[in-house]
Amino acid sequence: MVQNDRFMEKGNSSKLAYNQDLVFGTRAVLESIRSGKDIDKLMIQKGLNNPLIRELTDEAKKFNVPINIVPFEKLNRITRKNHQGAICFISSVIYASLDNIITRSYEQGKNPFILILDRVTDVRNFGAIARTAEVAGMDAIVIPSRGSASINSDAMKTSAGGLNYIPICREPNLKLTIKNLQDNGIQVVACTEKTDQEVYDLDLTPPTAIIMGSEEDGISPEYLKMVDQKGKFPVLGNIASLNVSVASALIIYEGVRQRKTNS
Amino acid sequence: MVQNDRFMEKGNSSKLAYNQDLVFGTRAVLESIRSGKDIDKLMIQKGLNNPLIRELTDEAKKFNVPINIVPFEKLNRITRKNHQGAICFISSVIYASLDNIITRSYEQGKNPFILILDRVTDVRNFGAIARTAEVAGMDAIVIPSRGSASINSDAMKTSAGGLNYIPICREPNLKLTIKNLQDNGIQVVACTEKTDQEVYDLDLTPPTAIIMGSEEDGISPEYLKMVDQKGKFPVLGNIASLNVSVASALIIYEGVRQRKTNS
Repeated sequence: MVQNDRFMEKGNSSKLAYNQDLVFGTRAVLESIRSGKDIDKLMIQKGLNNPLIRELTDEAKKFNVPINIVPFEKLNRITRKNHQGAICFISSVIYASLDNIITRSYEQGKNPFILILDRVTDVRNFGAIARTAEVAGMDAIVIPSRGSASINSDAMKTSAGGLNYIPICREPNLKLTIKNLQDNGIQVVACTEKTDQEVYDLDLTPPTAIIMGSEEDGISPEYLKMVDQKGKFPVLGNIASLNVSVASALIIYEGVRQRKTNS
Repeated sequence: MVQNDRFMEKGNSSKLAYNQDLVFGTRAVLESIRSGKDIDKLMIQKGLNNPLIRELTDEAKKFNVPINIVPFEKLNRITRKNHQGAICFISSVIYASLDNIITRSYEQGKNPFILILDRVTDVRNFGAIARTAEVAGMDAIVIPSRGSASINSDAMKTSAGGLNYIPICREPNLKLTIKNLQDNGIQVVACTEKTDQEVYDLDLTPPTAIIMGSEEDGISPEYLKMVDQKGKFPVLGNIASLNVSVASALIIYEGVRQRKTNS
Protein backbone atom coordinates (compact mmCIF):
# COMPACT_ATOMS: atom_id res chain seq x y z
CA MET A 1 0.00 0.00 0.00
CA VAL A 2 1.28 3.38 -0.91
CA GLN A 3 0.05 6.38 0.97
CA ASN A 4 1.06 9.03 -1.47
CA ASP A 5 0.62 12.14 0.60
CA ARG A 6 2.47 14.25 3.06
CA PHE A 7 3.52 12.50 6.20
CA MET A 8 5.13 13.48 9.42
CA GLU A 9 5.84 11.26 12.38
CA LYS A 10 4.83 12.97 15.58
CA GLY A 11 7.67 14.20 17.76
CA ASN A 12 10.32 12.94 15.42
CA SER A 13 9.95 15.26 12.50
CA SER A 14 13.66 15.91 12.16
CA LYS A 15 14.49 12.27 11.50
CA LEU A 16 11.75 11.31 9.13
CA ALA A 17 11.30 13.49 6.17
CA TYR A 18 8.35 15.68 5.54
CA ASN A 19 6.82 15.08 2.16
CA GLN A 20 8.18 11.56 1.89
CA ASP A 21 6.07 8.75 0.51
CA LEU A 22 5.09 6.23 3.12
CA VAL A 23 4.80 2.65 1.88
CA PHE A 24 3.44 -0.15 4.10
CA GLY A 25 2.62 -3.84 3.75
CA THR A 26 5.29 -6.50 3.17
CA ARG A 27 4.75 -6.92 -0.55
CA ALA A 28 4.40 -3.20 -1.29
CA VAL A 29 7.63 -2.48 0.58
CA LEU A 30 9.38 -5.36 -1.21
CA GLU A 31 8.30 -4.04 -4.62
CA SER A 32 9.39 -0.50 -3.77
CA ILE A 33 12.89 -1.77 -2.98
CA ARG A 34 12.99 -3.96 -6.08
CA SER A 35 11.92 -1.12 -8.35
CA GLY A 36 15.12 0.67 -7.42
CA LYS A 37 13.41 3.56 -5.59
CA ASP A 38 15.55 5.52 -3.13
CA ILE A 39 14.53 4.23 0.29
CA ASP A 40 15.19 6.71 3.07
CA LYS A 41 14.17 4.38 5.89
CA LEU A 42 13.03 0.76 6.14
CA MET A 43 11.40 -0.54 9.34
CA ILE A 44 10.61 -4.20 9.99
CA GLN A 45 8.72 -5.51 13.00
CA LYS A 46 10.79 -7.21 15.70
CA GLY A 47 10.35 -10.98 16.01
CA LEU A 48 8.51 -11.45 12.72
CA ASN A 49 9.62 -14.45 10.72
CA ASN A 50 7.65 -15.52 7.67
CA PRO A 51 8.74 -16.27 4.08
CA LEU A 52 7.77 -12.84 2.75
CA ILE A 53 9.62 -11.01 5.54
CA ARG A 54 12.69 -13.18 4.87
CA GLU A 55 12.45 -12.33 1.17
CA LEU A 56 12.14 -8.63 2.05
CA THR A 57 15.19 -8.82 4.34
CA ASP A 58 17.26 -10.50 1.61
CA GLU A 59 16.19 -7.96 -0.98
CA ALA A 60 16.98 -5.02 1.33
CA LYS A 61 20.49 -6.42 1.82
CA LYS A 62 20.89 -6.88 -1.93
CA PHE A 63 19.93 -3.24 -2.58
CA ASN A 64 22.02 -1.91 0.34
CA VAL A 65 18.99 -0.59 2.21
CA PRO A 66 19.72 -0.49 5.96
CA ILE A 67 17.08 -2.34 8.02
CA ASN A 68 15.67 -0.96 11.27
CA ILE A 69 14.13 -3.66 13.47
CA VAL A 70 11.47 -1.94 15.59
CA PRO A 71 8.71 -2.94 18.01
CA PHE A 72 5.15 -3.47 16.70
CA GLU A 73 3.99 -0.35 18.60
CA LYS A 74 6.36 1.89 16.69
CA LEU A 75 4.90 0.78 13.36
CA ASN A 76 1.38 1.33 14.75
CA ARG A 77 2.27 4.89 15.65
CA ILE A 78 3.18 5.54 12.02
CA THR A 79 0.08 4.02 10.49
CA ARG A 80 -3.11 2.51 11.89
CA LYS A 81 -3.60 0.55 8.68
CA ASN A 82 -2.54 -3.05 8.12
CA HIS A 83 1.23 -2.67 7.76
CA GLN A 84 1.98 -6.41 8.14
CA GLY A 85 5.18 -5.55 9.99
CA ALA A 86 6.88 -3.60 7.22
CA ILE A 87 7.03 0.12 6.49
CA CYS A 88 9.36 2.15 4.36
CA PHE A 89 9.76 5.77 3.33
CA ILE A 90 10.66 6.60 -0.22
CA SER A 91 12.83 9.64 -0.63
CA SER A 92 11.17 12.52 -2.42
CA VAL A 93 14.61 13.73 -3.42
CA ILE A 94 15.73 12.75 -6.91
CA TYR A 95 19.16 11.17 -6.62
CA ALA A 96 20.79 11.15 -10.01
CA SER A 97 24.00 10.17 -11.72
CA LEU A 98 26.13 13.20 -12.58
CA ASP A 99 27.18 11.60 -15.86
CA ASN A 100 23.55 11.26 -16.89
CA ILE A 101 22.84 14.87 -15.90
CA ILE A 102 25.73 16.15 -18.02
CA THR A 103 24.78 14.00 -21.01
CA ARG A 104 21.13 15.03 -20.80
CA SER A 105 21.97 18.72 -20.46
CA TYR A 106 24.15 18.65 -23.59
CA GLU A 107 21.64 16.48 -25.49
CA GLN A 108 18.84 18.92 -24.74
CA GLY A 109 20.96 21.72 -26.18
CA LYS A 110 21.25 23.33 -22.76
CA ASN A 111 24.27 25.11 -21.34
CA PRO A 112 25.18 23.02 -18.27
CA PHE A 113 24.92 24.91 -14.97
CA ILE A 114 25.73 22.80 -11.93
CA LEU A 115 26.25 23.56 -8.24
CA ILE A 116 28.74 21.70 -6.04
CA LEU A 117 28.38 22.03 -2.26
CA ASP A 118 31.57 21.09 -0.42
CA ARG A 119 30.48 20.19 3.13
CA VAL A 120 27.56 22.58 3.54
CA THR A 121 26.29 20.99 6.74
CA ASP A 122 23.64 23.45 7.92
CA VAL A 123 20.31 21.93 6.92
CA ARG A 124 18.55 25.29 6.49
CA ASN A 125 21.34 26.71 4.37
CA PHE A 126 21.24 23.57 2.25
CA GLY A 127 17.47 23.87 1.78
CA ALA A 128 17.69 27.59 1.00
CA ILE A 129 20.42 26.97 -1.59
CA ALA A 130 18.39 24.16 -3.19
CA ARG A 131 15.41 26.53 -3.49
CA THR A 132 17.48 29.18 -5.26
CA ALA A 133 19.24 26.65 -7.53
CA GLU A 134 15.86 25.23 -8.58
CA VAL A 135 14.32 28.64 -9.27
CA ALA A 136 17.43 29.55 -11.29
CA GLY A 137 16.92 26.43 -13.42
CA MET A 138 20.22 24.76 -12.55
CA ASP A 139 20.77 21.18 -13.75
CA ALA A 140 21.78 19.57 -10.46
CA ILE A 141 23.35 19.94 -7.03
CA VAL A 142 26.41 17.77 -6.34
CA ILE A 143 27.16 16.84 -2.74
CA PRO A 144 29.84 14.55 -1.32
CA SER A 145 28.58 11.15 -0.13
CA ARG A 146 29.81 12.00 3.37
CA GLY A 147 29.84 15.24 5.35
CA SER A 148 26.89 17.01 3.78
CA ALA A 149 23.66 18.22 5.37
CA SER A 150 21.09 15.46 5.74
CA ILE A 151 18.21 16.02 3.38
CA ASN A 152 15.51 15.91 6.01
CA SER A 153 12.21 17.61 6.76
CA ASP A 154 13.83 20.95 7.59
CA ALA A 155 15.84 20.94 4.36
CA MET A 156 12.71 20.07 2.35
CA LYS A 157 10.71 22.79 4.09
CA THR A 158 13.40 25.48 3.67
CA SER A 159 13.71 24.53 0.00
CA ALA A 160 9.99 25.40 -0.41
CA GLY A 161 9.61 22.17 -2.36
CA GLY A 162 12.64 22.85 -4.56
CA LEU A 163 14.19 19.55 -3.44
CA ASN A 164 11.29 17.76 -5.13
CA TYR A 165 12.51 19.00 -8.49
CA ILE A 166 16.24 19.57 -8.60
CA PRO A 167 18.35 16.40 -9.04
CA ILE A 168 20.89 15.69 -6.29
CA CYS A 169 24.11 13.83 -7.16
CA ARG A 170 25.99 12.14 -4.32
CA GLU A 171 29.60 11.74 -5.36
CA PRO A 172 32.12 9.68 -3.35
CA ASN A 173 35.15 11.81 -4.36
CA LEU A 174 34.81 15.47 -5.30
CA LYS A 175 38.34 15.59 -6.76
CA LEU A 176 37.33 13.01 -9.35
CA THR A 177 34.05 14.90 -9.86
CA ILE A 178 35.87 18.17 -10.61
CA LYS A 179 38.22 16.35 -13.01
CA ASN A 180 35.24 14.64 -14.65
CA LEU A 181 33.39 17.94 -15.13
CA GLN A 182 36.45 19.57 -16.66
CA ASP A 183 36.96 16.57 -18.97
CA ASN A 184 33.37 17.13 -20.11
CA GLY A 185 34.06 20.73 -21.07
CA ILE A 186 32.55 22.24 -17.93
CA GLN A 187 34.59 24.93 -16.17
CA VAL A 188 34.67 24.76 -12.36
CA VAL A 189 34.35 28.15 -10.64
CA ALA A 190 34.99 28.64 -6.92
CA CYS A 191 33.19 31.26 -4.86
CA THR A 192 35.87 32.08 -2.29
CA GLU A 193 37.36 35.02 -0.42
CA LYS A 194 40.84 33.69 -1.21
CA THR A 195 41.23 35.64 -4.47
CA ASP A 196 41.55 39.23 -5.68
CA GLN A 197 39.05 38.74 -8.46
CA GLU A 198 35.39 39.61 -8.08
CA VAL A 199 32.61 37.33 -9.28
CA TYR A 200 31.48 40.17 -11.57
CA ASP A 201 34.75 39.88 -13.51
CA LEU A 202 34.33 36.14 -14.17
CA ASP A 203 32.83 34.69 -17.33
CA LEU A 204 30.00 32.37 -16.31
CA THR A 205 28.54 31.97 -19.82
CA PRO A 206 30.37 28.72 -20.80
CA PRO A 207 29.20 25.39 -19.31
CA THR A 208 29.87 25.97 -15.61
CA ALA A 209 29.92 24.21 -12.26
CA ILE A 210 30.02 26.54 -9.26
CA ILE A 211 31.63 25.25 -6.08
CA MET A 212 30.65 26.64 -2.66
CA GLY A 213 32.48 25.78 0.56
CA SER A 214 31.48 24.96 4.11
CA GLU A 215 30.23 27.64 6.48
CA GLU A 216 33.29 27.18 8.71
CA ASP A 217 36.34 27.04 6.47
CA GLY A 218 35.23 27.48 2.88
CA ILE A 219 36.28 25.25 0.02
CA SER A 220 38.86 22.51 0.68
CA PRO A 221 42.34 23.62 -0.50
CA GLU A 222 42.70 20.46 -2.61
CA TYR A 223 39.64 21.48 -4.66
CA LEU A 224 40.63 25.16 -4.81
CA LYS A 225 43.88 24.15 -6.53
CA MET A 226 41.93 22.43 -9.30
CA VAL A 227 39.36 25.09 -10.21
CA ASP A 228 39.42 27.16 -13.41
CA GLN A 229 38.31 30.50 -11.95
CA LYS A 230 37.85 32.03 -8.48
CA GLY A 231 35.69 34.96 -7.49
CA LYS A 232 34.55 36.83 -4.38
CA PHE A 233 31.91 39.43 -3.58
CA PRO A 234 32.74 42.99 -2.47
CA VAL A 235 32.48 43.53 1.29
CA LEU A 236 31.72 47.20 1.99
CA GLY A 237 30.50 47.03 5.60
CA ASN A 238 31.91 46.11 8.98
CA ILE A 239 31.09 42.43 9.22
CA ALA A 240 33.29 40.12 7.29
CA SER A 241 31.20 37.82 5.22
CA LEU A 242 27.96 36.86 3.57
CA ASN A 243 25.92 33.83 4.57
CA VAL A 244 26.68 30.81 2.35
CA SER A 245 23.11 30.63 1.04
CA VAL A 246 23.23 34.33 0.14
CA ALA A 247 26.65 34.03 -1.54
CA SER A 248 25.38 30.98 -3.45
CA ALA A 249 22.33 32.91 -4.63
CA LEU A 250 24.46 35.86 -5.73
CA ILE A 251 26.85 33.81 -7.87
CA ILE A 252 24.07 31.61 -9.28
CA TYR A 253 22.07 34.66 -10.37
CA GLU A 254 25.21 36.38 -11.70
CA GLY A 255 25.37 33.33 -13.96
CA VAL A 256 21.69 33.73 -14.87
CA ARG A 257 22.24 37.43 -15.64
CA GLN A 258 25.32 36.85 -17.82
CA ARG A 259 23.74 33.94 -19.70
CA LYS A 260 20.59 35.99 -20.36
CA THR A 261 22.59 38.90 -21.77
CA ASN A 262 24.71 36.59 -23.92
CA SER A 263 21.95 34.32 -25.20
CA MET B 1 26.54 49.14 37.06
CA VAL B 2 26.88 48.30 33.47
CA GLN B 3 27.82 44.79 32.47
CA ASN B 4 29.00 45.48 29.01
CA ASP B 5 29.25 41.99 27.61
CA ARG B 6 27.11 39.39 25.94
CA PHE B 7 24.19 38.22 27.97
CA MET B 8 21.57 35.57 27.63
CA GLU B 9 18.93 34.69 30.15
CA LYS B 10 18.70 30.94 30.54
CA GLY B 11 15.65 29.30 29.06
CA ASN B 12 14.22 32.56 27.81
CA SER B 13 16.61 33.46 25.06
CA SER B 14 13.88 34.36 22.60
CA LYS B 15 12.49 37.13 24.78
CA LEU B 16 15.64 38.78 25.98
CA ALA B 17 18.07 39.75 23.35
CA TYR B 18 21.43 38.20 22.84
CA ASN B 19 24.20 40.74 22.77
CA GLN B 20 22.24 43.36 24.68
CA ASP B 21 23.83 45.44 27.36
CA LEU B 22 22.57 44.60 30.81
CA VAL B 23 22.40 47.53 33.24
CA PHE B 24 21.56 47.03 36.94
CA GLY B 25 21.31 49.17 40.05
CA THR B 26 18.65 51.88 40.49
CA ARG B 27 20.87 54.86 39.69
CA ALA B 28 22.61 53.21 36.72
CA VAL B 29 19.26 52.25 35.20
CA LEU B 30 17.91 55.77 35.84
CA GLU B 31 20.90 57.34 34.09
CA SER B 32 20.60 54.98 31.13
CA ILE B 33 17.01 56.05 30.58
CA ARG B 34 17.85 59.74 31.04
CA SER B 35 20.72 59.56 28.57
CA GLY B 36 18.17 58.69 25.87
CA LYS B 37 19.48 55.17 25.25
CA ASP B 38 17.08 52.73 23.58
CA ILE B 39 15.78 50.53 26.38
CA ASP B 40 14.56 47.15 25.20
CA LYS B 41 13.27 46.04 28.59
CA LEU B 42 13.02 47.60 32.06
CA MET B 43 12.34 45.42 35.12
CA ILE B 44 11.56 46.80 38.58
CA GLN B 45 11.18 44.70 41.72
CA LYS B 46 7.62 44.16 42.97
CA GLY B 47 6.70 45.91 46.20
CA LEU B 48 9.72 48.23 46.28
CA ASN B 49 8.98 51.79 47.26
CA ASN B 50 11.83 54.22 47.90
CA PRO B 51 12.54 57.73 46.55
CA LEU B 52 15.01 56.50 43.92
CA ILE B 53 12.63 53.83 42.62
CA ARG B 54 9.84 56.44 42.43
CA GLU B 55 12.16 58.75 40.51
CA LEU B 56 13.05 55.87 38.17
CA THR B 57 9.37 55.07 37.61
CA ASP B 58 8.57 58.70 36.80
CA GLU B 59 11.52 58.97 34.41
CA ALA B 60 10.55 55.73 32.62
CA LYS B 61 7.05 57.11 32.06
CA LYS B 62 8.50 60.40 30.80
CA PHE B 63 10.67 58.54 28.25
CA ASN B 64 7.89 56.11 27.24
CA VAL B 65 9.78 53.08 28.52
CA PRO B 66 7.32 50.31 29.48
CA ILE B 67 7.86 49.06 33.06
CA ASN B 68 7.76 45.37 33.98
CA ILE B 69 7.09 44.78 37.68
CA VAL B 70 8.69 41.41 38.53
CA PRO B 71 9.41 39.34 41.65
CA PHE B 72 12.80 39.66 43.39
CA GLU B 73 13.67 36.08 42.31
CA LYS B 74 13.37 36.94 38.65
CA LEU B 75 15.92 39.75 38.98
CA ASN B 76 18.23 37.38 40.90
CA ARG B 77 18.11 34.90 38.07
CA ILE B 78 19.39 37.59 35.72
CA THR B 79 22.24 38.78 37.90
CA ARG B 80 23.65 37.66 41.24
CA LYS B 81 25.11 41.12 41.77
CA ASN B 82 23.48 43.92 43.79
CA HIS B 83 20.73 45.03 41.41
CA GLN B 84 18.83 47.08 44.04
CA GLY B 85 15.55 46.05 42.41
CA ALA B 86 16.16 47.55 38.98
CA ILE B 87 17.50 46.04 35.79
CA CYS B 88 17.30 47.17 32.21
CA PHE B 89 18.57 45.99 28.83
CA ILE B 90 19.88 48.51 26.39
CA SER B 91 19.24 47.69 22.78
CA SER B 92 22.34 46.96 20.77
CA VAL B 93 20.46 47.98 17.67
CA ILE B 94 21.11 51.52 16.47
CA TYR B 95 17.74 53.22 15.99
CA ALA B 96 18.22 56.28 13.85
CA SER B 97 16.26 59.09 12.24
CA LEU B 98 15.88 58.59 8.49
CA ASP B 99 16.29 62.34 7.91
CA ASN B 100 19.65 62.25 9.67
CA ILE B 101 20.73 59.20 7.68
CA ILE B 102 19.88 60.91 4.38
CA THR B 103 21.60 64.15 5.36
CA ARG B 104 24.71 62.34 6.57
CA SER B 105 24.92 60.16 3.46
CA TYR B 106 24.79 63.23 1.16
CA GLU B 107 27.18 65.21 3.39
CA GLN B 108 29.74 62.41 3.29
CA GLY B 109 29.59 62.49 -0.50
CA LYS B 110 28.03 59.04 -0.57
CA ASN B 111 25.36 57.81 -2.95
CA PRO B 112 22.42 56.95 -0.66
CA PHE B 113 21.45 53.28 -0.69
CA ILE B 114 18.61 52.41 1.65
CA LEU B 115 16.48 49.32 2.24
CA ILE B 116 12.79 49.44 3.19
CA LEU B 117 11.21 46.27 4.58
CA ASP B 118 7.40 46.33 4.32
CA ARG B 119 6.16 43.84 6.94
CA VAL B 120 8.98 41.30 6.81
CA THR B 121 7.87 39.43 9.90
CA ASP B 122 10.08 36.34 9.88
CA VAL B 123 12.84 37.03 12.38
CA ARG B 124 15.44 34.88 10.60
CA ASN B 125 14.72 36.48 7.24
CA PHE B 126 15.00 39.89 8.87
CA GLY B 127 18.37 38.98 10.42
CA ALA B 128 19.66 37.48 7.18
CA ILE B 129 18.66 40.60 5.24
CA ALA B 130 20.32 42.86 7.83
CA ARG B 131 23.54 40.85 7.46
CA THR B 132 23.56 41.25 3.68
CA ALA B 133 22.61 44.96 3.83
CA GLU B 134 25.46 45.61 6.26
CA VAL B 135 28.05 43.71 4.21
CA ALA B 136 26.87 45.61 1.11
CA GLY B 137 27.51 48.90 2.92
CA MET B 138 23.91 50.16 2.82
CA ASP B 139 23.08 53.31 4.79
CA ALA B 140 20.08 52.04 6.75
CA ILE B 141 17.13 49.67 6.97
CA VAL B 142 13.69 51.29 7.29
CA ILE B 143 10.93 49.31 8.98
CA PRO B 144 7.38 50.33 9.86
CA SER B 145 6.78 51.04 13.57
CA ARG B 146 4.22 48.25 13.60
CA GLY B 147 4.10 44.85 11.88
CA SER B 148 7.79 44.18 11.49
CA ALA B 149 9.89 41.34 12.87
CA SER B 150 10.96 41.92 16.45
CA ILE B 151 14.67 42.55 16.62
CA ASN B 152 15.42 39.83 19.13
CA SER B 153 18.17 37.31 19.84
CA ASP B 154 17.40 35.21 16.76
CA ALA B 155 17.48 38.26 14.49
CA MET B 156 20.77 39.38 16.02
CA LYS B 157 22.26 35.91 15.65
CA THR B 158 21.10 35.44 12.05
CA SER B 159 22.50 38.88 11.20
CA ALA B 160 25.94 37.60 12.34
CA GLY B 161 26.34 40.85 14.25
CA GLY B 162 25.25 43.00 11.30
CA LEU B 163 22.48 44.52 13.43
CA ASN B 164 25.20 46.00 15.66
CA TYR B 165 26.32 48.19 12.78
CA ILE B 166 23.54 49.02 10.36
CA PRO B 167 21.19 51.81 11.51
CA ILE B 168 17.49 50.86 11.78
CA CYS B 169 14.84 53.54 11.17
CA ARG B 170 11.36 52.89 12.55
CA GLU B 171 8.86 54.97 10.58
CA PRO B 172 5.20 55.38 11.58
CA ASN B 173 3.93 55.76 7.99
CA LEU B 174 5.76 54.25 5.03
CA LYS B 175 3.72 56.32 2.52
CA LEU B 176 5.15 59.49 4.02
CA THR B 177 8.59 57.83 4.10
CA ILE B 178 8.46 57.02 0.37
CA LYS B 179 7.31 60.58 -0.38
CA ASN B 180 10.07 61.97 1.85
CA LEU B 181 12.75 59.87 0.13
CA GLN B 182 11.56 60.97 -3.31
CA ASP B 183 11.50 64.63 -2.19
CA ASN B 184 15.14 64.14 -1.17
CA GLY B 185 16.12 62.96 -4.65
CA ILE B 186 16.11 59.26 -3.78
CA GLN B 187 14.32 56.95 -6.23
CA VAL B 188 12.24 54.17 -4.68
CA VAL B 189 12.56 50.79 -6.42
CA ALA B 190 10.24 47.87 -5.71
CA CYS B 191 11.36 44.25 -5.96
CA THR B 192 8.11 42.58 -7.00
CA GLU B 193 6.78 39.89 -9.30
CA LYS B 194 4.01 42.28 -10.41
CA THR B 195 5.97 43.70 -13.33
CA ASP B 196 7.37 42.63 -16.70
CA GLN B 197 10.68 44.33 -16.11
CA GLU B 198 13.68 42.48 -14.71
CA VAL B 199 15.88 43.92 -11.98
CA TYR B 200 18.80 43.69 -14.43
CA ASP B 201 17.10 46.28 -16.66
CA LEU B 202 16.72 48.83 -13.85
CA ASP B 203 19.15 51.64 -13.19
CA LEU B 204 20.21 51.40 -9.56
CA THR B 205 23.09 53.89 -9.83
CA PRO B 206 21.22 57.05 -8.69
CA PRO B 207 20.43 57.53 -4.98
CA THR B 208 18.12 54.56 -4.34
CA ALA B 209 15.83 53.06 -1.73
CA ILE B 210 14.85 49.44 -2.40
CA ILE B 211 11.52 48.23 -1.04
CA MET B 212 10.92 44.55 -0.28
CA GLY B 213 7.53 43.12 0.65
CA SER B 214 6.21 40.61 3.16
CA GLU B 215 6.73 36.87 2.69
CA GLU B 216 2.99 36.35 2.29
CA ASP B 217 1.68 39.00 -0.06
CA GLY B 218 4.58 41.16 -1.18
CA ILE B 219 4.60 44.94 -1.14
CA SER B 220 1.39 46.77 -0.16
CA PRO B 221 -0.47 48.02 -3.27
CA GLU B 222 -0.56 51.58 -1.87
CA TYR B 223 3.26 51.66 -1.82
CA LEU B 224 3.61 49.90 -5.19
CA LYS B 225 1.62 52.73 -6.78
CA MET B 226 4.14 55.29 -5.53
CA VAL B 227 7.45 53.69 -6.56
CA ASP B 228 9.66 54.94 -9.39
CA GLN B 229 10.73 51.57 -10.79
CA LYS B 230 9.73 47.90 -10.37
CA GLY B 231 11.79 44.81 -11.12
CA LYS B 232 11.60 41.04 -10.72
CA PHE B 233 14.05 38.15 -11.03
CA PRO B 234 13.84 35.49 -13.72
CA VAL B 235 12.23 32.23 -12.56
CA LEU B 236 13.54 29.36 -14.69
CA GLY B 237 12.59 26.35 -12.56
CA ASN B 238 9.41 24.72 -11.29
CA ILE B 239 8.89 26.44 -7.97
CA ALA B 240 7.47 29.89 -8.09
CA SER B 241 9.57 32.21 -6.06
CA LEU B 242 12.75 33.10 -4.26
CA ASN B 243 12.99 33.50 -0.50
CA VAL B 244 12.68 37.17 0.54
CA SER B 245 16.18 37.23 2.05
CA VAL B 246 17.61 35.80 -1.18
CA ALA B 247 15.66 38.24 -3.38
CA SER B 248 16.81 41.10 -1.12
CA ALA B 249 20.44 40.00 -1.45
CA LEU B 250 20.13 39.73 -5.24
CA ILE B 251 18.74 43.24 -5.74
CA ILE B 252 21.08 44.79 -3.15
CA TYR B 253 24.12 43.28 -4.86
CA GLU B 254 22.79 44.18 -8.31
CA GLY B 255 22.97 47.73 -6.95
CA VAL B 256 26.52 47.13 -5.67
CA ARG B 257 27.54 45.72 -9.07
CA GLN B 258 26.04 48.60 -11.08
CA ARG B 259 27.47 51.27 -8.77
CA LYS B 260 30.92 49.67 -8.95
CA THR B 261 30.88 49.62 -12.76
CA ASN B 262 29.64 53.20 -12.95
CA SER B 263 31.87 54.72 -10.30
